[in-house]
Amino acid sequence: MTPSSLPVIRLKPKANARAIRHGAPWVFDNELVTDRRTKAIAPGSIAVLEDAGREPLALVAVNPKSRIMGRVLDLDTSAEIGEAWLRERLARALALREKLYDAPYYRLIHAEGDGLPGVVIDRFGDVAVIQPNAAWAEALLPELVAALREVTGVTTMLKNAGGRARGLEGLDDESAVLEGAAPVGPVEVPMNGAVYMADLTGGQKTGLFYDQRPNHAFAARMAKGARVLDVFAHVGGFSLAALAAGAESALAVDGSEPALELARAGAEKMGAAGRFETRKADAFEALTALAEEGARFDMVICDPPAFAPSKQALEAGLRAYERVARLAAPLVAEGGILGLCSCSHAADLAKFRSACLRGIGRAGRAGPLIHTGFAGPDHPQHPNLAETAYLKALFFRL
Amino acid sequence: MTPSSLPVIRLKPKANARAIRHGAPWVFDNELVTDRRTKAIAPGSIAVLEDAGREPLALVAVNPKSRIMGRVLDLDTSAEIGEAWLRERLARALALREKLYDAPYYRLIHAEGDGLPGVVIDRFGDVAVIQPNAAWAEALLPELVAALREVTGVTTMLKNAGGRARGLEGLDDESAVLEGAAPVGPVEVPMNGAVYMADLTGGQKTGLFYDQRPNHAFAARMAKGARVLDVFAHVGGFSLAALAAGAESALAVDGSEPALELARAGAEKMGAAGRFETRKADAFEALTALAEEGARFDMVICDPPAFAPSKQALEAGLRAYERVARLAAPLVAEGGILGLCSCSHAADLAKFRSACLRGIGRAGRAGPLIHTGFAGPDHPQHPNLAETAYLKALFFRL
Repeated sequence: MTPSSLPVIRLKPKANARAIRHGAPWVFDNELVTDRRTKAIAPGSIAVLEDAGREPLALVAVNPKSRIMGRVLDLDTSAEIGEAWLRERLARALALREKLYDAPYYRLIHAEGDGLPGVVIDRFGDVAVIQPNAAWAEALLPELVAALREVTGVTTMLKNAGGRARGLEGLDDESAVLEGAAPVGPVEVPMNGAVYMADLTGGQKTGLFYDQRPNHAFAARMAKGARVLDVFAHVGGFSLAALAAGAESALAVDGSEPALELARAGAEKMGAAGRFETRKADAFEALTALAEEGARFDMVICDPPAFAPSKQALEAGLRAYERVARLAAPLVAEGGILGLCSCSHAADLAKFRSACLRGIGRAGRAGPLIHTGFAGPDHPQHPNLAETAYLKALFFRL
Repeated sequence: MTPSSLPVIRLKPKANARAIRHGAPWVFDNELVTDRRTKAIAPGSIAVLEDAGREPLALVAVNPKSRIMGRVLDLDTSAEIGEAWLRERLARALALREKLYDAPYYRLIHAEGDGLPGVVIDRFGDVAVIQPNAAWAEALLPELVAALREVTGVTTMLKNAGGRARGLEGLDDESAVLEGAAPVGPVEVPMNGAVYMADLTGGQKTGLFYDQRPNHAFAARMAKGARVLDVFAHVGGFSLAALAAGAESALAVDGSEPALELARAGAEKMGAAGRFETRKADAFEALTALAEEGARFDMVICDPPAFAPSKQALEAGLRAYERVARLAAPLVAEGGILGLCSCSHAADLAKFRSACLRGIGRAGRAGPLIHTGFAGPDHPQHPNLAETAYLKALFFRL
């Protein structure tokens, strides 16, 4: 579609056109003139955003159902959003990852941070998993598949339609094989010297996340000879990295048996199964039980799910983080390391840190903060969204 | 001195005794009953801190001249602050560093973060440089030297009395050799695969700082084949790490010729002198000149001195950071990396990030934030002081 045939949406006179020109990625509904015509634009349509004086500002993907009604795709309003355009964005993203990593296992596209709003692509060697969590990308999926094949050479592309945003965009939740053959069984993923097993077809909703890679690495460098407890272990993110770095033992606790099965398979591949144990349990109950058993570890890591996914859930979420810290701290041997993570947008760094400190203090323990880590650099943050860094990892020495 | 013979200082009834019991490191003058007797306590005296009900809370180092009138040494008021006590703190600090690093080059004691308020000790192999920036530590210097020898086996100990806090503590600024012989010429320091030359006797006020180590490492992993510009280069922190990682070339700019001489000596030792250039210049002038020359780099790093060392200097400091970003961004090749650092306490992460983004935007450039780094883990932060993380390093991809 040529730009001239695209629908138009227009900023109100008081809206900040300058912010858009300077790279703001989102246009909110209250900044736009919304009449019957704009409300009728189908979610995911590409439109020209104009300022109040009808000067074109940007090409945007429109969703009239969302508070974020427009997401900027390109400040060049003469751009054609198609396969060639997608190739250029993908190539740019790939160049960064190739600078960062020796092997093709990374998040290739991190939505706004890589200039493709609502699109997430994780790469596992020759396999790519695409999350088109925005209607514009769903509409351009054939072009995206072609561009991705061309730029990266991946042979298998899977569509993961489990993203929560898809409903809002009017999209279904049907995952699919887009190209090639879905891998039979879990895929081996090398990371930080460990081997992880990733179930990419998502039957068990296990998947694999790259965001904790630098925090796994930080923990691992202190893990030599250590007894490690990995709570909310998922497929063994922290424990397998620790074993690869020479941990004496690792115990992974998780509520999901399929996740722990993948963790054990990873340890097996690494030849570390003899040093690895798993326990299927509720994390809070397991922490309490381990304390009753008198267990002590040189390193305890807790990487729970988002306890504060929204502002409404913030207070309860912070109490949950405090409780994790309070139950975990007593299990850390004198001089040992306690790693506490949060992937909650709503709990910012200062609030999360305070919750952790309260929990540690209530456990009668204390110690300095030796490291604060975030998501890895294959999760670039759009500068205007940098405040909302969701992943935080704090390492205390008790 | 036995605890019973120590002077006593007492909290006011409204002061927060609970905070002290829970690990707060500082007691402010307005929290204390200050009469003629307390004001007469010599700076650096060790005293017993009591709550308003005369219950002993902690042993503290007292400085009646400072707003921070008491610094907690030990919550165990029966502790004897002497050589054995210092040995225990040093051993605890050493155990962490030995977990973190393969070679004995690190900050061994980071003041409150290692339980020794006002004391900084950097280790360079067999040489330790002690900064006793608090009167209590100056008084116990012989015990500290003996404990340090015993715990670490270092053979040379130097006293660096250049710390600004010493004046407030009533201490002189005379550096000295405390034990062994001062190294003749600069000392080789291996870090991130590079070799740095450190002038430990401080004749040229160059020294060497360990705090940027993880940020050097982050830059270095993207430096292979890159043309690197290192502004405010000091002894070559970022540029030598980049050369060790395979940078095509590095240009170090600094206003200090002695610092650049050490940087060149490091590059020489690494066999990388042929890829390394230096330019003695004011950084702002050099950035402007390079832009006029049409120079472009794949990576530009700016690690200026503290532009906002105090709250009073905050606004001017933020403008200076913005200016650095504005002048540096145009020198970054398309798709390249811009690393911007701040070591200002007063400029917190959000303010510093905003200043950088304003500068990048005013240069007509844009790009995601791919990494936020802090001081390395050999700079542990007392949990109550974690808000004040002074060192921030932001990496943007433009």
